Amino acid sequence: MIDIATRVYNHKWKIDPIVRSLIDTDFYKLLMCQSVFRNKPDTTVTFSLINRSKDIRLAELIDEGELREQLDHVKSLSLSRGESTWLRGNTFYGKRQMFRPDFMEWFENMRLPDYHLEKRDGQYELTFEGSWPEVMLWEIPALAILMELRSRAVLNTMKKFELQVLYARAMTKLWEKVEALRSVENLRIADFGTRRRHSYLWQDWCVQAMMEGLGEKFVGTSNCRIAMQREIEAIGTNAHELPMVYSALAEDDAALAQAPYQVLEDWHEEHDGMLRVILPDTYGTQGFLDRAPEWLNEWTGIRIDSGDPATGAENAINWWKSRGEDPTKKLVIFSDGLDVEKVRELSAQFQGRVRVSFGWGTLLTNDFRGLVPDNALAPFSLVCKAIKANGRSTVKLSDNPNKAMGPADQIERYKRVFAVGTQKAQDVIV
Amino acid sequence: MIDIATRVYNHKWKIDPIVRSLIDTDFYKLLMCQSVFRNKPDTTVTFSLINRSKDIRLAELIDEGELREQLDHVKSLSLSRGESTWLRGNTFYGKRQMFRPDFMEWFENMRLPDYHLEKRDGQYELTFEGSWPEVMLWEIPALAILMELRSRAVLNTMKKFELQVLYARAMTKLWEKVEALRSVENLRIADFGTRRRHSYLWQDWCVQAMMEGLGEKFVGTSNCRIAMQREIEAIGTNAHELPMVYSALAEDDAALAQAPYQVLEDWHEEHDGMLRVILPDTYGTQGFLDRAPEWLNEWTGIRIDSGDPATGAENAINWWKSRGEDPTKKLVIFSDGLDVEKVRELSAQFQGRVRVSFGWGTLLTNDFRGLVPDNALAPFSLVCKAIKANGRSTVKLSDNPNKAMGPADQIERYKRVFAVGTQKAQDVIV
Repeated sequence: MIDIATRVYNHKWKIDPIVRSLIDTDFYKLLMCQSVFRNKPDTTVTFSLINRSKDIRLAELIDEGELREQLDHVKSLSLSRGESTWLRGNTFYGKRQMFRPDFMEWFENMRLPDYHLEKRDGQYELTFEGSWPEVMLWEIPALAILMELRSRAVLNTMKKFELQVLYARAMTKLWEKVEALRSVENLRIADFGTRRRHSYLWQDWCVQAMMEGLGEKFVGTSNCRIAMQREIEAIGTNAHELPMVYSALAEDDAALAQAPYQVLEDWHEEHDGMLRVILPDTYGTQGFLDRAPEWLNEWTGIRIDSGDPATGAENAINWWKSRGEDPTKKLVIFSDGLDVEKVRELSAQFQGRVRVSFGWGTLLTNDFRGLVPDNALAPFSLVCKAIKANGRSTVKLSDNPNKAMGPADQIERYKRVFAVGTQKAQDVIV
Repeated sequence: MIDIATRVYNHKWKIDPIVRSLIDTDFYKLLMCQSVFRNKPDTTVTFSLINRSKDIRLAELIDEGELREQLDHVKSLSLSRGESTWLRGNTFYGKRQMFRPDFMEWFENMRLPDYHLEKRDGQYELTFEGSWPEVMLWEIPALAILMELRSRAVLNTMKKFELQVLYARAMTKLWEKVEALRSVENLRIADFGTRRRHSYLWQDWCVQAMMEGLGEKFVGTSNCRIAMQREIEAIGTNAHELPMVYSALAEDDAALAQAPYQVLEDWHEEHDGMLRVILPDTYGTQGFLDRAPEWLNEWTGIRIDSGDPATGAENAINWWKSRGEDPTKKLVIFSDGLDVEKVRELSAQFQGRVRVSFGWGTLLTNDFRGLVPDNALAPFSLVCKAIKANGRSTVKLSDNPNKAMGPADQIERYKRVFAVGTQKAQDVIV
């Protein structure tokens, strides 16, 4: 029996919305948003889409009208009552009322501000300008929309069984990864794949497959909507956006040198335990750690998001030792370009030396490599970054010069202020 | 929205019936049934289940109560109005009214007779005794039920995503076969996999995948229900059952020697064109062809169902030549233990020398080899054969001594009467 009402209802949608909830976003975005709402509410920031994979000509693949419809749909969203209840009532990292009542009240009334979209050289120029706590919430939906519209563009020409077999292959591929991860001792792995997912439904499938296939080894997802729906942990702490904007706001070189620590000082006041995770690579990890104030010694962990991950973790261990800390009590989170082999390697290398956790992103939720001709569904490197704060350009250096961004003169200035020497270039895959 | 009525309806079924239609059977069964109904209506025949794969202990895998419920459900079935309309109104091999009105009237009122079931040595003894045109219709549903109950027994312990990935793997495996077959020139291939299918839904999926993936190269299915549902050709002619029963009924050795030709004489009267296909191997192909009457020269094709298929086809070609026929106008149908490689090989070998067609059975609709631990879903060799006719044992020799059946003394007698020499033994896989 077909439910006629359901069929009619489904067919009256003008579009098939990609992002249907304001909490279909990464958990750390909300944590950072609350921090910004408290500490820097009056900052004007510009976020911009950057497609590092120039060969993927998005403006030729994706119809502008469809893109606008999807973005407009996100603008129409507001926090639902159940979502608000979940954010207010759920425990995050064992803590109740992670989100303060004043923030929740603001969030309940928040709507995403407008966007600016134009085509240039086969790419979309998509920017969001406005109040920092508002525009920062565009990052994840904008990326998810672009990624999924690209998937749809490729899937659009495929026939029914071809499609079913495509997903059968993708499921098989993911399940083989899950099976390979089962034997990794003391594994702790989370889904960090919202921004570059193949699609929402696929991410949700991947999460559920990890739940069944890995049990306790799967510790949660960065996606709040999925965490709520599947009743699992929401995972995440903070990102480069905070030191980048804080740094851009610095009035002189001395203030600039202090800006990344100022971020963590604000964070320190608000959070403890598992949320005290240092992301040290924005302007070079080694310099950041060498000059770190004493109070950072006691922080729980370090997230390695660029450069060679094993080297990054060794440096973290050495730093903790040099500060008189016991690394076996500390946590290293790997979150850059992971796949099964890398997870196995890193797990083996750091077993018993430091606690290890993995944030698995693109190659969890979008590994469609090799599944269609011309590799047309392979993931690509799309980011959406804060490029300006109160009119000044932001800068990111990271531990991989291929991930650096900002105006050339500012990059030079930042390298000088943060005493960044020669860096080893690494390919940016995803 | 969940359709509440549908959910409640689905949950009130006492069982999930495996065979839900009297035409969920092979097309040739109905053609043979009509022939028997006309020519040998008063014969009493016993069909018996034979599990050639002794290591699959069916009575330990499958609950007797569940098996009885499934068999009882088949007994309750009658031809539906739409099914009757389809059989009466559809064209089969281009012919209208393939089924005569008197046969259709009988079939519309037919119910399957009772069965006899007991357990012995970890196997089921399942027999059907009664009027030939009735009991012969038990063969395919009985096999399909046993095969699917065995699948269910294995699937029963699997979790949700494990199951989904199992089917994803099976789909991928089948699709790779379809893709490999696409490049075979002049391919004509049909689904012959009803009796040993993994399940009904899976067979239906396989057929649809072949329709999409192979287009014109996929010529139809032996399954009448699926042919009706998917609006494709129903495929099939006749089987060993006819010469086996005719031979058992022979009063002396002279009559026995003529029995296989008598079958085809009855067939000749009723059918022409594509339905005139010789199945020569029941008591040895070579002797059958050597002694064949002249009127068989003009028959359209020969089906190769045992022995080495290439040798069988070469012998068929030589026979046609020896009878002054042009083999390029003739048809060879391969239907024994096929898989992609064999199809490619045989296609290449006989390209341009004879028309070739393939009936692809078990490894189309039940290739779950290697997909679960202990290969517990691998297909196995289950048959359901006419073992007695009017109280006398039947005999089958075929071109492979491993496929021979019947009492030892009768096998010797048949070998003498049909002058069967030494035969080359071949493994029976499926």
